[in-house]
Amino acid sequence: MNTIEQEFQQILENKQPANLYAPISYTLLQSGKRLRPKLVHMAVEMFGGNAEEAQKVAMAFEMLHNFTLIHDDIMDVAPIRRGKDTVYKKWNSNIAILSGDALAIMAFQQLLRLKGGSQLIIDIAEVFSQTSLEICEGQQYDLDFETQPKVSIDEYLKMICKKTSVMFAGCMKSGAILAGADEQDQQHLYDMGINLGIAFQLADDVLDVYASSAAFGKTIGGDIRDNKKTYLYLMALQQANSEQKKILEDLFARPTTDFEQKYKIVRGIYDDLNIKAQTEEQVRKYVELCLADLEKIKVADKKKADIKNLVINLIDREK
Amino acid sequence: MNTIEQEFQQILENKQPANLYAPISYTLLQSGKRLRPKLVHMAVEMFGGNAEEAQKVAMAFEMLHNFTLIHDDIMDVAPIRRGKDTVYKKWNSNIAILSGDALAIMAFQQLLRLKGGSQLIIDIAEVFSQTSLEICEGQQYDLDFETQPKVSIDEYLKMICKKTSVMFAGCMKSGAILAGADEQDQQHLYDMGINLGIAFQLADDVLDVYASSAAFGKTIGGDIRDNKKTYLYLMALQQANSEQKKILEDLFARPTTDFEQKYKIVRGIYDDLNIKAQTEEQVRKYVELCLADLEKIKVADKKKADIKNLVINLIDREK
Repeated sequence: MNTIEQEFQQILENKQPANLYAPISYTLLQSGKRLRPKLVHMAVEMFGGNAEEAQKVAMAFEMLHNFTLIHDDIMDVAPIRRGKDTVYKKWNSNIAILSGDALAIMAFQQLLRLKGGSQLIIDIAEVFSQTSLEICEGQQYDLDFETQPKVSIDEYLKMICKKTSVMFAGCMKSGAILAGADEQDQQHLYDMGINLGIAFQLADDVLDVYASSAAFGKTIGGDIRDNKKTYLYLMALQQANSEQKKILEDLFARPTTDFEQKYKIVRGIYDDLNIKAQTEEQVRKYVELCLADLEKIKVADKKKADIKNLVINLIDREK
Repeated sequence: MNTIEQEFQQILENKQPANLYAPISYTLLQSGKRLRPKLVHMAVEMFGGNAEEAQKVAMAFEMLHNFTLIHDDIMDVAPIRRGKDTVYKKWNSNIAILSGDALAIMAFQQLLRLKGGSQLIIDIAEVFSQTSLEICEGQQYDLDFETQPKVSIDEYLKMICKKTSVMFAGCMKSGAILAGADEQDQQHLYDMGINLGIAFQLADDVLDVYASSAAFGKTIGGDIRDNKKTYLYLMALQQANSEQKKILEDLFARPTTDFEQKYKIVRGIYDDLNIKAQTEEQVRKYVELCLADLEKIKVADKKKADIKNLVINLIDREK
């Protein structure tokens, strides 16, 4: 079977105009985690499904993911991703808008290549399009929260559920559909993806502040710079004394001028309140929920080993 | 049967977050020409297909069209569309990017609602996704041409074929598929859409310079302001004397400072060279090609009357 990189190269070969397709190649052929393709493949393998067919679904979700990154990086004015210039930075915003659009459409086209009957394609396309729409909703909530004065932890969890979790859930449910799992098991995999996504995003919130720059591939403290109300920030705000609360709220209410100073102060408050350990505790909680969902699936334990390992390793990642 | 506006209202009802869906309602519920829905319905009617099913396909294409407008208006920095603020102007660029994305996804979802068998959905989804991708390619060529020193008339026609014609062709072919037309007739309708699209765009190029402002709904001379190498510009360049050529090339090689002055000079040259009449002659040529395609379709002449009228009226429009 071709690797996903080979498949991407194949569908992009000789495509014109260059200004539309070069940013797509640039993005798809970067060495990302390929987490979403892994989730698709593992879900399919668990039920003994066909790996070549799984690859098409894996491609579709990886392309969808990269489409969201290209557009999000414009909106977040993020210059660096995976240690390289983002598309809007390397080319320009117009090219980033348009190549993102094209990538989303190409993602859909991968599903149309599936064999195994037209109803199967439609069932997966339903999950895929619903996932895509919810991701847009999640990104809009994320943008809204930047200027919304008060954000509750529940609202935050709902936002990351849409922005991050539904894609994990969509990958796993689509894999289950492809492999012919029954509706109950499809739902267990979906739930598993939701909990995994929340764990993943909370771990990401920790990494944004505490990662080592070399491994991370993004700007450390980017969320602090952009006044993102992350789980760490919201937890800190809940537990802060009145002085700390005032400092946090003031710093996050206006554009960042002295970033290093701001990062140092905010991280200092997080440290004082032990926010890192508390968030990591939540990560573990969601990982446990995720593993409990996995337990419920009606296949032998040894078929669950790969995905279980992936889930556990995801907590200890450095990027 | 519900009107397309009622259908749009229904699928948008109570959708959250407001910042994502309000721009979509704003755009879809404006009184546009609804030309693409008409093309779908007329193609379906010609073969005696189901109007309610046609409405779903019509919605999908109208949504696709509006998605491209929302994103194009960001790229073209166009403040006005259909006499109203564009989405990026009324909200902001980030909201315009994201609501455009959501609208494209929702367009796809309309196709998944079709009855009549899963293979039918896939056949139409193939046309729809290929159309969508080519529109992105056309828009990229359009952006490229702004800074490309030389653009030939053939390159220009290829660009507008992708940017405008393939959507018309996609609407008509999808209608034919839905109504069960054979492959030959599907192709005739596709070809008809291509020729109609070129005629439509050339007529649009004329309107950009010569429309009366009240009816047009866009900025008169917007193409001239934005240094768009339209059919009028390329024809003028071909026929200009060396002095006129120098003036045109100079004016289109740098950003517009004094717009009124530039518009007056460029229009003056077009007038001297009789470019308007020559372009209108080309419009008629493509309309004739379009009607010749219509002739070939194997249905009774009286079933072709509506679409024939639409084509003919499209030449004399004011917006």
